[in-house]
Amino acid sequence: MLTRIDHVGIACRDLEEKIAFYESVFGLAVVSREVISEQGVKEAMLRVAEAPAGTSYVQLLEPLGPDTPVGRFLQRRGEGVHHVGYGVTDITAALASIGAAGVRLIDQRPRHGSLGASIAFVHPADVGGVLTELVEAASG
Amino acid sequence: MLTRIDHVGIACRDLEEKIAFYESVFGLAVVSREVISEQGVKEAMLRVAEAPAGTSYVQLLEPLGPDTPVGRFLQRRGEGVHHVGYGVTDITAALASIGAAGVRLIDQRPRHGSLGASIAFVHPADVGGVLTELVEAASG
Repeated sequence: MLTRIDHVGIACRDLEEKIAFYESVFGLAVVSREVISEQGVKEAMLRVAEAPAGTSYVQLLEPLGPDTPVGRFLQRRGEGVHHVGYGVTDITAALASIGAAGVRLIDQRPRHGSLGASIAFVHPADVGGVLTELVEAASG
Repeated sequence: MLTRIDHVGIACRDLEEKIAFYESVFGLAVVSREVISEQGVKEAMLRVAEAPAGTSYVQLLEPLGPDTPVGRFLQRRGEGVHHVGYGVTDITAALASIGAAGVRLIDQRPRHGSLGASIAFVHPADVGGVLTELVEAASG
């Protein structure tokens, strides 16, 4: 079902500082920046892999305020890995399959994600503490 | 420098239970199991991507006892993402470059990792709370 590790989402306090770090130390390149008001976050996607078939990203996430999901994560856990996003070819089928396995879904239906993808989150309490995101890329 | 997300390392309390979960719910397949006594861990690598060029893994990690790095992580944080491993083509050059940037290295020199890879860890305090692993795969 899962076709690749699409991205690792990393919560940080200062997006621009962390972008500069990943660019200069690890040689990654920013491919998009977005402010997603309804999720209370501004974010950047940095490309890791070069091959189009296997593109993966580091997703840096800075909260727009303390009373947002990423803001509360930072207060509780500090900076670090926030979630893992996996590629799927058919997100609707994947959600149906995972839900049928008795795993709680945060999103019953896909919603808009970074880079035009359709995304949905699976509850971390049912995935061994890992907030797990499904990503159907816009390009299919 | 980083060529792909090689794996996400996930700390868990019961390796066999988590393997069964990732197999049945997400359709992943175990490609190796190892006990690494000097790191106090038993682990399984589950293949995510299909393309040989872009293979990624979920690495499940169960501590061999409470007084091990993963054992202490579980006591402090609970189950969840423990580290992120990135592919590199030349780990010695990568370590030199990252060290020269003033980032603290846990491993000054590469050591043996899963699937015959050469690996080295970078200190999470200098990577925004993310324990970061470099992986030069055995196949190059």
